[in-house]
Amino acid sequence: MDAETFRRNGHALVDWIAEYLNHPEHYPVLSRNRPGEVRDALPDKPPERGVAFEEIFRDFERVIVPGITHWNHPGFFGYFAISGSAPGILAEFLTAALNVQAMLWRTSPSATELEEVTLGWLRQLLGLPDSFEAVIYDTASIASLHALAAARHHVVPNVRLQGLSGPGNVGPLRVYASEHAHSSIDKALITLGLGQESLCKIPVDSEFRMLPDALRDAIRSDRDNGVTPVAIVATVGTTSTTSVDPVVSISEISVNEGIWLHVDAAYAGAAALVPDTRYVLEGCAHADSLVVNPHKWLFTPFDLSAFYCRHMDVVRAAFSLTPDYLDTPEAGQVKNLMDTGVQLGRRFRALKLWAVIRYFGSDGLRERIAEHMRLAQIFSKWVDESSYFERAAPVPLSVVCFRAHGSDNDSTTDDLNMRLLTRVNSSGEVFLSHTRLNGRYTIRLAIGHVRTTEAHVRRAWELLNEARREIGE
Amino acid sequence: MDAETFRRNGHALVDWIAEYLNHPEHYPVLSRNRPGEVRDALPDKPPERGVAFEEIFRDFERVIVPGITHWNHPGFFGYFAISGSAPGILAEFLTAALNVQAMLWRTSPSATELEEVTLGWLRQLLGLPDSFEAVIYDTASIASLHALAAARHHVVPNVRLQGLSGPGNVGPLRVYASEHAHSSIDKALITLGLGQESLCKIPVDSEFRMLPDALRDAIRSDRDNGVTPVAIVATVGTTSTTSVDPVVSISEISVNEGIWLHVDAAYAGAAALVPDTRYVLEGCAHADSLVVNPHKWLFTPFDLSAFYCRHMDVVRAAFSLTPDYLDTPEAGQVKNLMDTGVQLGRRFRALKLWAVIRYFGSDGLRERIAEHMRLAQIFSKWVDESSYFERAAPVPLSVVCFRAHGSDNDSTTDDLNMRLLTRVNSSGEVFLSHTRLNGRYTIRLAIGHVRTTEAHVRRAWELLNEARREIGE
Repeated sequence: MDAETFRRNGHALVDWIAEYLNHPEHYPVLSRNRPGEVRDALPDKPPERGVAFEEIFRDFERVIVPGITHWNHPGFFGYFAISGSAPGILAEFLTAALNVQAMLWRTSPSATELEEVTLGWLRQLLGLPDSFEAVIYDTASIASLHALAAARHHVVPNVRLQGLSGPGNVGPLRVYASEHAHSSIDKALITLGLGQESLCKIPVDSEFRMLPDALRDAIRSDRDNGVTPVAIVATVGTTSTTSVDPVVSISEISVNEGIWLHVDAAYAGAAALVPDTRYVLEGCAHADSLVVNPHKWLFTPFDLSAFYCRHMDVVRAAFSLTPDYLDTPEAGQVKNLMDTGVQLGRRFRALKLWAVIRYFGSDGLRERIAEHMRLAQIFSKWVDESSYFERAAPVPLSVVCFRAHGSDNDSTTDDLNMRLLTRVNSSGEVFLSHTRLNGRYTIRLAIGHVRTTEAHVRRAWELLNEARREIGE
Repeated sequence: MDAETFRRNGHALVDWIAEYLNHPEHYPVLSRNRPGEVRDALPDKPPERGVAFEEIFRDFERVIVPGITHWNHPGFFGYFAISGSAPGILAEFLTAALNVQAMLWRTSPSATELEEVTLGWLRQLLGLPDSFEAVIYDTASIASLHALAAARHHVVPNVRLQGLSGPGNVGPLRVYASEHAHSSIDKALITLGLGQESLCKIPVDSEFRMLPDALRDAIRSDRDNGVTPVAIVATVGTTSTTSVDPVVSISEISVNEGIWLHVDAAYAGAAALVPDTRYVLEGCAHADSLVVNPHKWLFTPFDLSAFYCRHMDVVRAAFSLTPDYLDTPEAGQVKNLMDTGVQLGRRFRALKLWAVIRYFGSDGLRERIAEHMRLAQIFSKWVDESSYFERAAPVPLSVVCFRAHGSDNDSTTDDLNMRLLTRVNSSGEVFLSHTRLNGRYTIRLAIGHVRTTEAHVRRAWELLNEARREIGE
């Protein structure tokens, strides 16, 4: 593509994206596509001849956009609401253009060093001590996988060479997490060859927080039965309710028992930027590792997961491996980030986090996160004052769990809430998702988009009430 | 950021990128930064106040760009040369703007369905049968990890629940790969709890291809000793020399022995688009899984790794796990791509592959790949005719391994070649990397950038000869 053609198409994209980010309400939040609609609209054979980018872009608008669920819509309240903020999007454009591999220092010194600098900034914003070294992974799933791999290496040092099934087999291993921990912990244990049954799910209190006494008992009972503890996973901001496990007590247990403590703060770590909710990371200075996702609540386009570890030497002992073709003269003087990962190839992700932190400033980030929590409190108050709805969990951060009152029958009430959610989401103005709490279907409103305002939250509330009235009893 | 500011900054970026892609020779290929230069140029504390994007961009040019090694420079001949082609870069810009999560069908139907369509196109281009189902991962490291996890699940079905160290311990397990297989295979085995010693490295012939007889013998001997084979990994395009393992013979062994065959065609799979080198994937129709990286030799910005599998049901059996908060009404009617992966979060990567295939067309892709192989043959001929240099391996594809003749002493010759490489790379006009073959230091010239022409390859040759003359004997 010559420079002129690139400019023409690039400028057209800039204009389209500017319009898109400013008026996402032109689109329904949740795609209205039927299964197969995109697939059926496209040829099933690859094209022989190339076409102009203009034609590709026309098909993007015609076929792809209707099949998009708009995560950048301020009425997106599903899962954890995220934002690809403008500075992050622009930085991603540069990252794609540079197309560097951040595996070795020499394959782009800026990629390695900017990662160190920006993760240092983020560490300070989170209030973590400088004993934490850091690295960027794609997702929290991969960050937690590395944390648990390091913990496994710590307990079974010959695992790297001999694995778990060989002659050095040490018998059953155990990892502890609350019953509200994220599914990525289960998947990490499957991957690592520990198996799902190695996960001991610790019960929670009435506010969905891990019970430290139950954790202590589980560890004792395991030790008595010849089971070796590998790690404890505490969750700061569970996916269903954003409950915060009591990390201070949990970290005491981890220190006393000598068990690796990994903190999954993928979503809620960002709340530590705000003075009122700085407490969410209390106790985490004693954790062995911690993950927080700037692509969740720090306005950074997906994917960028920040992993902090007080024993990165263990991660390196578990994974570093330099084949001849990746040996460099400066090895020893520099960090080669491939040493801290399963993945050799690494995008230059630090650039977008750097752009986001600089563009908003700590103040700007803090303000926006605080505002999201204020909006969640407002919504929560509306729920509490309503005769139609009830709150299903505390609201410590920016997610509200609630449900419509129904009859006494649980399954009828579940059904009512499902219908409510379907109806509200079909409006195209908002999108909310659900969970189950104590077995009961529960609607979730998650606030996290940088452009979400009180008006959007109010509109969600209106739509819910309208839908509740229309559905009747 | 308001629309006007986004437009202004976006347009400036488009102009910068257009200029960059057209004149990368304004920059040295390999960054000349000293270790710490970028880090020292940036504040070690996060900014309190935000700044305009213009200021961030100025610092990008001032601090970041000098620390970039230019993978998009047509004189980049290191590792495997890759390209972020213009249509791919533009598509990445849209992906960043949409910022969708492709974990569930409903979180953007287009992301899931376009992935199916484009991987179907690529499958046809590779000449693979439609018994292969496909999914996009970030890297081949992760694709091979999933392949080996599926193979492990196949052999030890209770591994998902009980792991490898529990009561169901089946004793030592083994994976077979050539001694030239990629380090990602070692890392996958570490991760999966099989351990590095579970990797049996099969010797190669004089052209660095796995010896099928040695594979057969290793399997027999292991079975006799109570070791359970899990998988065979064949490499189509090894990293050092791009040698192609004899997959036809290897797949016969895999079928006869009932052992999962995974093919790592991360780099060389693309050569199957060209009639003359279609043979590289011969026998792969019988493989159980295969990975090819469009971000390597198919002009797609990093990262995008295409994983093909004839038993995706096993991958799903190993990994699918749906927590309440990710349950959707349409489950069962649609594919949810989170079911085939360790990672829950997934970028909308298919968009860039779709744009690249449509923009170039199969013809355009084929032509460019063929041209790279033609250039490698030209360079190889120069080496063969030279009195200064000798070829160190056959040149089946687009990489040439060679070294300068030295004295009889191996270490002196190694040293000469190291100095040569350093000198050539310091020119700023080209960047080549190295490997070791049979213990001897070997220079590699890897051709793969979409803008690399005969002139760039010729310039590399001139620089090598100049350096050789200057260094003397």
